[in-house]
Amino acid sequence: MKSFAMLGINKVGWIEKEKPVAGPYDAIVRPLAVSPCTSDIHTVFEGALGERTDLILGHEAVGEVVEVGKEVKDFKPGDKVVVPAITPDWRTIEVQQGYHMHSGGMLAGWKYSNIKDGVFGEYFHVNDADMNLAHLPDDIPLEAAVMLSDMVTTGFHGAELANIELGDAVAVIGIGPVGLMSVAGAKLLGASRIIGIGSRKALIEAAEYYGATDIVNYRNGPIDEQIMDLTGGKGVDRVIIAGAGSDILKTAVKIVKPGGTISNVNYFGEGDTLPIPRLDWGNGMAHKTIIGGLTPGGRNRMEKLINLVKYNRIDPSRLVTHKFHGFEHIEKALLMMKDKQQDLIKPVVFVE
Amino acid sequence: MKSFAMLGINKVGWIEKEKPVAGPYDAIVRPLAVSPCTSDIHTVFEGALGERTDLILGHEAVGEVVEVGKEVKDFKPGDKVVVPAITPDWRTIEVQQGYHMHSGGMLAGWKYSNIKDGVFGEYFHVNDADMNLAHLPDDIPLEAAVMLSDMVTTGFHGAELANIELGDAVAVIGIGPVGLMSVAGAKLLGASRIIGIGSRKALIEAAEYYGATDIVNYRNGPIDEQIMDLTGGKGVDRVIIAGAGSDILKTAVKIVKPGGTISNVNYFGEGDTLPIPRLDWGNGMAHKTIIGGLTPGGRNRMEKLINLVKYNRIDPSRLVTHKFHGFEHIEKALLMMKDKQQDLIKPVVFVE
Amino acid sequence: MKSFAMLGINKVGWIEKEKPVAGPYDAIVRPLAVSPCTSDIHTVFEGALGERTDLILGHEAVGEVVEVGKEVKDFKPGDKVVVPAITPDWRTIEVQQGYHMHSGGMLAGWKYSNIKDGVFGEYFHVNDADMNLAHLPDDIPLEAAVMLSDMVTTGFHGAELANIELGDAVAVIGIGPVGLMSVAGAKLLGASRIIGIGSRKALIEAAEYYGATDIVNYRNGPIDEQIMDLTGGKGVDRVIIAGAGSDILKTAVKIVKPGGTISNVNYFGEGDTLPIPRLDWGNGMAHKTIIGGLTPGGRNRMEKLINLVKYNRIDPSRLVTHKFHGFEHIEKALLMMKDKQQDLIKPVVFVE
Amino acid sequence: MKSFAMLGINKVGWIEKEKPVAGPYDAIVRPLAVSPCTSDIHTVFEGALGERTDLILGHEAVGEVVEVGKEVKDFKPGDKVVVPAITPDWRTIEVQQGYHMHSGGMLAGWKYSNIKDGVFGEYFHVNDADMNLAHLPDDIPLEAAVMLSDMVTTGFHGAELANIELGDAVAVIGIGPVGLMSVAGAKLLGASRIIGIGSRKALIEAAEYYGATDIVNYRNGPIDEQIMDLTGGKGVDRVIIAGAGSDILKTAVKIVKPGGTISNVNYFGEGDTLPIPRLDWGNGMAHKTIIGGLTPGGRNRMEKLINLVKYNRIDPSRLVTHKFHGFEHIEKALLMMKDKQQDLIKPVVFVE
Repeated sequence: MKSFAMLGINKVGWIEKEKPVAGPYDAIVRPLAVSPCTSDIHTVFEGALGERTDLILGHEAVGEVVEVGKEVKDFKPGDKVVVPAITPDWRTIEVQQGYHMHSGGMLAGWKYSNIKDGVFGEYFHVNDADMNLAHLPDDIPLEAAVMLSDMVTTGFHGAELANIELGDAVAVIGIGPVGLMSVAGAKLLGASRIIGIGSRKALIEAAEYYGATDIVNYRNGPIDEQIMDLTGGKGVDRVIIAGAGSDILKTAVKIVKPGGTISNVNYFGEGDTLPIPRLDWGNGMAHKTIIGGLTPGGRNRMEKLINLVKYNRIDPSRLVTHKFHGFEHIEKALLMMKDKQQDLIKPVVFVE
Repeated sequence: MKSFAMLGINKVGWIEKEKPVAGPYDAIVRPLAVSPCTSDIHTVFEGALGERTDLILGHEAVGEVVEVGKEVKDFKPGDKVVVPAITPDWRTIEVQQGYHMHSGGMLAGWKYSNIKDGVFGEYFHVNDADMNLAHLPDDIPLEAAVMLSDMVTTGFHGAELANIELGDAVAVIGIGPVGLMSVAGAKLLGASRIIGIGSRKALIEAAEYYGATDIVNYRNGPIDEQIMDLTGGKGVDRVIIAGAGSDILKTAVKIVKPGGTISNVNYFGEGDTLPIPRLDWGNGMAHKTIIGGLTPGGRNRMEKLINLVKYNRIDPSRLVTHKFHGFEHIEKALLMMKDKQQDLIKPVVFVE
Repeated sequence: MKSFAMLGINKVGWIEKEKPVAGPYDAIVRPLAVSPCTSDIHTVFEGALGERTDLILGHEAVGEVVEVGKEVKDFKPGDKVVVPAITPDWRTIEVQQGYHMHSGGMLAGWKYSNIKDGVFGEYFHVNDADMNLAHLPDDIPLEAAVMLSDMVTTGFHGAELANIELGDAVAVIGIGPVGLMSVAGAKLLGASRIIGIGSRKALIEAAEYYGATDIVNYRNGPIDEQIMDLTGGKGVDRVIIAGAGSDILKTAVKIVKPGGTISNVNYFGEGDTLPIPRLDWGNGMAHKTIIGGLTPGGRNRMEKLINLVKYNRIDPSRLVTHKFHGFEHIEKALLMMKDKQQDLIKPVVFVE
Repeated sequence: MKSFAMLGINKVGWIEKEKPVAGPYDAIVRPLAVSPCTSDIHTVFEGALGERTDLILGHEAVGEVVEVGKEVKDFKPGDKVVVPAITPDWRTIEVQQGYHMHSGGMLAGWKYSNIKDGVFGEYFHVNDADMNLAHLPDDIPLEAAVMLSDMVTTGFHGAELANIELGDAVAVIGIGPVGLMSVAGAKLLGASRIIGIGSRKALIEAAEYYGATDIVNYRNGPIDEQIMDLTGGKGVDRVIIAGAGSDILKTAVKIVKPGGTISNVNYFGEGDTLPIPRLDWGNGMAHKTIIGGLTPGGRNRMEKLINLVKYNRIDPSRLVTHKFHGFEHIEKALLMMKDKQQDLIKPVVFVE
């Protein structure tokens, strides 16, 4: 089958691969809509995961089931499904310990375009379909649904990890598509003031749409100073990091109150270490919690997110700024994520 | 000073009382807007707190500071303030244990119109002003602000106690003003589907405004059956009880999933016991948590709620269906809460 | 194969049944030591689960693997294993929601001697062996290990659900074998004072061994009065119910402080409802949480408990007061649990 | 009055100061037993808090009340009391937010020998006596009680912050007196295996006494390698840092499992930043929580700890290796904490 793949570091292209085969609990899915992710860019152009050869890219998809293994009970060919980026092995000790995203090892719940072929093929494989797929309701458009696989769940996880309490002030560092969903997640979890940190106009407008009450632009001076000014010198209750360089904890620790939380859903790709500023961290005693984690995935997570869309709590389609029709546009869409033109948030490729 | 008081069980009236005196940490406040509460009705007409003589009623107020004790630092005469219904003693062991609403004994953080004179006087007393008052911003109207004292904080507490996770389905039993704020609170805390249970048209419309996605009317059949039907036999993740009789746990336990939570902010006024249905509670082993609690109060709580209004997360003014101008209308407004005509949610009396 | 079974309500006896067959992920185990449980008594002599015909009894066992399905990776014939009473289906939505003991439905993680044949046969079946069995280290005696299946994990779960904080005072109602493990669990989780409630000498001595600092005997007067006396009228921070009748919440709610927790691991077998006392529950507003739940099971849970034995944090063998050698003694051991003679805590039957 | 003070950085000595005066809520206490702390050494000889002139040192004391303000209700002259190192202002917004140790600002609940005179005087001042003192029971020896002020509560807080679950494996980095109490705290909170990291014989023996099951000595090779070896390459569930240099997170993050917690109660005195190792932290996505905090203090905390001693859950007197009788030995005892001879854990000075 035709697939768009990483050929090696810094090289992508179309290749032919065998159509995947379903084990007894698995499904084969034909993509209906897919979206490239900044992670794909890290993987290919920064070699963040190390060398990979002929690995099919992509981990954000909605699709149609074309084949299921004999033990699959809840899905059948023809079903439309949301496919999470994180598709754990549910029979692992890590699941019993509460961390399905690390089932089988740290981050190993993330399989697509990482440890197995991704979704940018004519077909792709889903392990444990009953536990990892979710039915797509008819009234949710494909472009909204395909944002659930990664952008919505990851952004929301940033908000979940931040321990937000009713009325808290929250800063969201980075308002790309994940950060925008952290803004939306913070609003959904009861934040009052939400300060988005970013500079591109398209992102700022979207941040305001999703719930940001203030915007801080790093071009106007140091972020920490601007936020301390905005908050009368008190800082914020929670910080969500959704996009930043290795030094960002220096800022994040500074702007959060004692007793506050810094949550991270950013993929840090560079630097040996991420420095915590000692004095701002109270010499180790400030109760400023630092926590970062890969998003949950699997069926239950997707069903909860689908319900948030269905009951009008969130409209992820506002993230989609560019739409392509035809599988062949995947290459172009991927490269958009590399170049990030002014008006881009996320492109979606509809297969038909 | 002139005050509207409970003269005894079943008797209310206007009386003269001495103007209260501020201790070194206290304030004297002149009400600007007040609202009567169903609790006042319980207190007077059901004798729920036992006999009381010449107790000034009312615990929902915004006002203007007219006098402060010499140790008060953050408030001065002329300041406009939100006064919480719950004004704890902050120097108690219960505060150190995390339950300021029970400071000095079970429920003893609730002082106004319970263990001390309420706010329906020309002036009222605020213990520990720096810790219990919050500044009212100019751009929040009095009618919205006076809802924060009890309705908003109590309704929200129902949602807080319910352990809502992103995307949960929540049922709110009782959609009077507190229940409406539980609906709003559930939405603020990330619920997807919210099923409001009630029957009056004014309440149903308000419930939909505040976030209810479905309404169940007990006139159409047993609540539990209707909710199990709506949820395909699965039940809901969380139940908030905001108004009901002594038998309500029979319904609430039935409609909640194993692992779910039933939270209560209703004041149960009758019956020796509140029965849990044994089989639906899994013979004691279903992990269906039952928790009920008096709302938090104090300054920090009010400031957080004020921020939720200020940043447009909630507009409590939609609760206010009837407005009166002139202190003398307190009696009429109170009796409205007793009679509960079709179109009533909450009346507010503006003193001027 | 020879098996000891419930023939019908009020009738037990030896029957012949087919040896169970292992599916690809399952194991067949030969018991080495088993122990009857009060639940077996409820099942047979009170018909608590309803009618059952020729259902093999027993859910507490350590054994030797004799056969494994072709997909089993971590166990092989000859391995000695601890078998939890709760053996969930790990591929269910309830697992993804955090409640494996309710996988497939309320309480449905409890299979042995409930919804499938138990462990009182020459062989028994283990679903999903890799996820539900744990290796038994050589240095842990069988009699200690067989207590982990149910008594230790259930008793400890009572302590876990109770939200114990360092230094809390805890009352444990019922000091049979599960209650004794709740005493031990409360100690392990940081309780200071632990008040055991019981009357039999053997149990009282064991309670003191496991960490009870005070004993309250219901023969000396009402439990609530005794506990309020002991605590200077303050009550305790947490209550664990590990054995009691349907009315016990009347006592438990009375003796717990506002903000405290009542946890239940008792199997309530009688009564339509379990009444909460309204006034002691603060009319619904006392923040006295009530939570009851079936114990966790599965591999990770057993491994954690095994480590607690291995590192000398708990010695469950003190629970075992009567030992039998020979499979044929199962009947006698079971009936001991019915009659409960003075010196009995738990009998164990070693198969050889 | 005679007092032992920091005269300036690197200089200590005896000085005369005015006897402190009690405000209406305060008490004046005469020390009965005191103990110097490594923090005093940091303060004086490393200038960790910056310059201080004639600041009385010391924050660990038990004493006798000699005077109380007119609003003090629960204490009177002659009462023996435990004095916590952390004596917050309970009327602050931080208390309402759940962080009394940061009342009035980050770390500002720590007053003695930091922002006010310490306990190494003939008398010392206690703010808000009813909220900050605890009665010392007769049957607890002074040397055990004086360990509660800081060593026990701080070490236990390390264990509390670590989110220990029943049966977890825990590593404690640094087994000085605080680390020893983290070992004891981890045991009290349900850890199974506890790996103490240290090298001095006196400390190792004490660690084993308090519950360490394994010891790792940095002289035998890199700590991380030794711990990964001990745990079969899996790492531990929780890490408590109770003494270490600025680079310790590199080790701690490496040895903790995904989903685990690193808690810190160490006072980091050097280095601009504390580096987190990026790859071992899963590029920001490993769910390895990092949290550090100043110990709770105040009355309720001390009462809980007193109960743990009273009910034999912990014997802190094993920490005390050197005893002096006579106030004049404070200087010598303090310098012992600087020199740390082989057999030292903690010295105590009995005033009489």
